[in-house]
Amino acid sequence: MVCFSNFTINSKLLWDALLYLARRKTKEPIMSRQILIIGAGRSCSALVDYLLDHAREGEWKVKVGDMDMSLAQERVHDHPDGIAFELNALDPAMRRKEIETSDLVISMLPARFHLDVVKDCIELKKSIIAPSYISKELQELNEDIKAAGIGLLMECGLDPGIDHMSAMEVIDRIKGEGGKLIRFESFTGGLIAPESDNNPWNYKFTWNPRNVVLAGQGGSARFIREGRYKYVPYSKLFTRVKSIKIEGYGEFEGYPNRDSLKYKKVYDLGDIPTLYRGTLRRAGYSEAWNTFVQLGMTDDTFEVDNLEGLTWRDFTNSFLSYATDIPVEEKLRSYLNVTDEIMDKLVWLGMFSNEKIGLKKGTPAKVLQHLLEQKWSLEAGDKDMIVMWHRFNYELNGKENEIHSSMIVLGDSYHTAMSKTVGLPVAISARLM
Amino acid sequence: MVCFSNFTINSKLLWDALLYLARRKTKEPIMSRQILIIGAGRSCSALVDYLLDHAREGEWKVKVGDMDMSLAQERVHDHPDGIAFELNALDPAMRRKEIETSDLVISMLPARFHLDVVKDCIELKKSIIAPSYISKELQELNEDIKAAGIGLLMECGLDPGIDHMSAMEVIDRIKGEGGKLIRFESFTGGLIAPESDNNPWNYKFTWNPRNVVLAGQGGSARFIREGRYKYVPYSKLFTRVKSIKIEGYGEFEGYPNRDSLKYKKVYDLGDIPTLYRGTLRRAGYSEAWNTFVQLGMTDDTFEVDNLEGLTWRDFTNSFLSYATDIPVEEKLRSYLNVTDEIMDKLVWLGMFSNEKIGLKKGTPAKVLQHLLEQKWSLEAGDKDMIVMWHRFNYELNGKENEIHSSMIVLGDSYHTAMSKTVGLPVAISARLM
Repeated sequence: MVCFSNFTINSKLLWDALLYLARRKTKEPIMSRQILIIGAGRSCSALVDYLLDHAREGEWKVKVGDMDMSLAQERVHDHPDGIAFELNALDPAMRRKEIETSDLVISMLPARFHLDVVKDCIELKKSIIAPSYISKELQELNEDIKAAGIGLLMECGLDPGIDHMSAMEVIDRIKGEGGKLIRFESFTGGLIAPESDNNPWNYKFTWNPRNVVLAGQGGSARFIREGRYKYVPYSKLFTRVKSIKIEGYGEFEGYPNRDSLKYKKVYDLGDIPTLYRGTLRRAGYSEAWNTFVQLGMTDDTFEVDNLEGLTWRDFTNSFLSYATDIPVEEKLRSYLNVTDEIMDKLVWLGMFSNEKIGLKKGTPAKVLQHLLEQKWSLEAGDKDMIVMWHRFNYELNGKENEIHSSMIVLGDSYHTAMSKTVGLPVAISARLM
Repeated sequence: MVCFSNFTINSKLLWDALLYLARRKTKEPIMSRQILIIGAGRSCSALVDYLLDHAREGEWKVKVGDMDMSLAQERVHDHPDGIAFELNALDPAMRRKEIETSDLVISMLPARFHLDVVKDCIELKKSIIAPSYISKELQELNEDIKAAGIGLLMECGLDPGIDHMSAMEVIDRIKGEGGKLIRFESFTGGLIAPESDNNPWNYKFTWNPRNVVLAGQGGSARFIREGRYKYVPYSKLFTRVKSIKIEGYGEFEGYPNRDSLKYKKVYDLGDIPTLYRGTLRRAGYSEAWNTFVQLGMTDDTFEVDNLEGLTWRDFTNSFLSYATDIPVEEKLRSYLNVTDEIMDKLVWLGMFSNEKIGLKKGTPAKVLQHLLEQKWSLEAGDKDMIVMWHRFNYELNGKENEIHSSMIVLGDSYHTAMSKTVGLPVAISARLM
């Protein structure tokens, strides 16, 4: 039996999921008067709006601090219950002063900055929410957090966040019915909405470009298939993709995402024989991206020599053999067996153009990002799209069953899909706390 | 004009080179009474013998300390001027006590341990020699070293060491004649002597196996060819080889070694248009080694799951696709376009055998090393071989000239070639200091 349960993001589902989560994570709700949001980037807009909309009901004020005052102001847009202010989150004194006068802290900073904020919160006894992955360093603060009597809620955005909640909802249901899970596959992607999808890569930056350029670096991806552990190094990551078709939305592909195996324990999946987490892209993306990986253009460990004065063609050539009598295009084609389709994508990006790069210094990864930011940035009116797809296989009464669960969220003129899916679960968590 | 200047390792050349080096690096020779050698590994044997042979003339004693007392004893072999003792070099108190009572320190520890020893030497005002590369951290101690009035001599083994000296000898000669250098290529390899070369890889471990398994990791290799900078990522390193033929010794190949570009400044080569440093192997090695790189078997960042109980065939399979109906050999062949010649090498190693691995835990790199150590270890009587090859091109009076300089050192029944080429320059440096 195959059954489809499509769910769209809505407060009801999230509310249920978060109540569920809240029952698991926090025992006593905390009354808050001032909510401090550190960082006012793009993914904060739906978060701030939600908290402002519920400010009267919840009797709280929302203070939004960012290095860039105008960004903070844009988020708060003169709402009577909102306060925008300039905040250098890396200045410990400034940061601590703000945390001290707040009742709940939400860190929307890049993941690597959460640690210091959490340490402050422990010392100043303030609860804190951050959507990112729980790092090893943060994990180690568990006892201190308990001792301080505060709440720390993490992995409560999209991925990680909604992926956990929506997966656990089905997993718990299957287990509740007495089923035995034999396969769990989960894919998420931040993509461009079909209406704004107008380039040959079928991709634009709807998220931190640097993370996209460096995606997959830092050790082999790991998953398990029918009881066999599988390891894929970075240099093969974008060649080992799975095709996924989502009714009404067309063809996607997924490449393995980091270490799937740790979810065995997190999701309490015992010795499940197949477990795979992946990142979704439109079909054909990975094969073309692999060109950059094979060339070495995603290397972030050294500065390109004499960068000033180089053209994009020179840059591409610096990863190819010396031969001066063969055009750069032909060298690339024969070096990596590049197809016409991939070649079109590279030409469209301008990899062979005689235009100057226009950077004074940078690693290959930064130079590549510089080019992609010119070609893959959202244009005015562009909408993004979040796609999440889970597959569950389980045995019940001697029969194998399969459930597909998918979520498609489209950006609208107020909020990007990314902002909704990352920000709303955080906002609702804050409301619950 | 092409002229060949083959030189074999001999005290005269080294003495000259070291005098040259000594003039550059140390201003006042220091009289020493006790020389402390920290670490008594395989590459120390020629070093200890040389210093013991010159102990009466130099009026010094040689103290050799190692974690493994029997190894230290083996090096000193009851020589009246030698003292073997047990030393845990990682125990700061024990280490400092020994340094304090010595006049000159020679650190033969793995490169990453030099820093602490050098710091002790600065504090205790003792000069120190270590054959390894000067790390960034050590470079930063330059002022402290000067202030302490001690000498620090590094990069004085084989590679780095003899490569520098032998290259600079020719470079200075060319410059002295008024020539302009337009190409410098330099290759070094620690290999197996032809008489002991009896496996299909034409390779055995004559050096730290771990360094061989991890070779090339940690950022793209960089070099410059006819004015164009070239970058090669790890995943392509073993496919971008140069063939080199050395008269009387046959075919070799070299793959790019780390960052060649930093030698522009070190060797004072100005804007030389071609600069390349490589690692030498026997022809065919790199192509086969590339199989491990492409599979991801050289990854040292995660532990293999459920390693206990796995066979070598299972291990190989964990880097390949799931398909159970295709033999592991065929999956590998089609995944990486493996030739029959490479297949023979892999079969010879036992990559497809149903034998148990016999390790409880380990990263893929450690598991691979475990296999290679069973197959590539020196047998009784095996001799090693050091090969170094430089090519210099320069313009003089409007004509282009080319000089090849090569060194072949063979191990004998007393010392390995590695021990001679690493240990003797260090020993002679110590004598000079």
